[in-house]
Amino acid sequence: MTTASENPTLKMRQLFDQETWTHTYLLYDSENGEGVLIDPVKEKVDRDLNLLKELNVTLKYVLETHVHADHITGAGDLREKTGAKIYYGEKAAVPCADGLLKDGEELAFGNYSIKALSTPGHTDGCTSYVLGNMVFTGDALFIRGTGRTDFQQGSSEALYKSINSKLFTLPEDTLVYPGHDYKGMWVSTIGEEKKHNPRVGGGKTLKEFVEIMDNLNLANPKKLDISVPANLKCGQTA
Amino acid sequence: MTTASENPTLKMRQLFDQETWTHTYLLYDSENGEGVLIDPVKEKVDRDLNLLKELNVTLKYVLETHVHADHITGAGDLREKTGAKIYYGEKAAVPCADGLLKDGEELAFGNYSIKALSTPGHTDGCTSYVLGNMVFTGDALFIRGTGRTDFQQGSSEALYKSINSKLFTLPEDTLVYPGHDYKGMWVSTIGEEKKHNPRVGGGKTLKEFVEIMDNLNLANPKKLDISVPANLKCGQTA
Repeated sequence: MTTASENPTLKMRQLFDQETWTHTYLLYDSENGEGVLIDPVKEKVDRDLNLLKELNVTLKYVLETHVHADHITGAGDLREKTGAKIYYGEKAAVPCADGLLKDGEELAFGNYSIKALSTPGHTDGCTSYVLGNMVFTGDALFIRGTGRTDFQQGSSEALYKSINSKLFTLPEDTLVYPGHDYKGMWVSTIGEEKKHNPRVGGGKTLKEFVEIMDNLNLANPKKLDISVPANLKCGQTA
Repeated sequence: MTTASENPTLKMRQLFDQETWTHTYLLYDSENGEGVLIDPVKEKVDRDLNLLKELNVTLKYVLETHVHADHITGAGDLREKTGAKIYYGEKAAVPCADGLLKDGEELAFGNYSIKALSTPGHTDGCTSYVLGNMVFTGDALFIRGTGRTDFQQGSSEALYKSINSKLFTLPEDTLVYPGHDYKGMWVSTIGEEKKHNPRVGGGKTLKEFVEIMDNLNLANPKKLDISVPANLKCGQTA
């Protein structure tokens, strides 16, 4: 694994949608300008297009961590405007995607490639993306939290396994960039989450995790009913 | 100037207060745990103390970029709980501060030191802080914007000079971390702002800048009347 410090032309930008507290990530190679966006938000497409233009980035791929239930993706609009290809993890099986990534499969941009890591549990198609010393965990692992598992094929057992057998086996200093963060902390590390995550850290057992998840009693996301159908069309419903 | 990649034990965390869209920055040396917080927010002191504890960071200094008009500082509470010293730029002259930093003066923590850069204009005591390839610009330079100059000893002429003669002379790849960002972009670079900042980029003249600033017609910050007096007491009014 290469680290950011070994890759001076690898640039990353964390972008934020205040309506849904969603993080979008731009990764690009400043040498040749090729880049990818992870989890763009429909309402922020103009901002993101403007940033791509100002940074001279050619958008090669839009990567989705999963079929979102809380916001509508900007993927379709970005594809239309830039020609970028849309990828999901294999089990997301979204009809509008240009490709589905198997566990461990990589996509190249510039001098770099980003690797899909199947991390089901929040949804069964959830995929994290690894590049250098960064992992983009979508709604699998949050900072001191996890994605919920109570709808959309959610499974606490699967999520526990994804976090412990996949994410927690990455190097401890790997930077964790989640799909959301509701405490304004923005980034963590694998080492920190292994120690301090109140749901899965400190050696919590599967039984303890399932009990925590079973007792969250969360309300459904406000945009659930419109987001999922819209996202199966890559955010383009018109 | 050393860069982050040359300083593997230098860690930075950008923290967010959603009520006032304020960014707080934690910088620490992971080798010996000494750290500084820039612009902490009173309502987030518990979160920040918890993070310091989890990361084993000993807070050595709280650095303020200026006397804030939009939020109440957490500096006083943090000093009380951790013993950290509070520093402002020289011209801020806040009575509760432990020290005032001259332009160019440095404070050491762990193996690093952070340098005060006097950047008046939003207020006459505004100070930016430089460490490695990062500059924390407070309310002087924003991402594609600037701080306002219409109250609290604001001066468009001074701000223009601070940005052009101080901040824009830093290396172009210096990462710009502002005190606020209302577009969810979180970080920029000096090179980007020199090119794309609509107020001061692209070679805007002082006359053009003053005209832009004179026509902003902004409402006063909601917390102006309570923030400034409270911040002159380092956020401790009781």
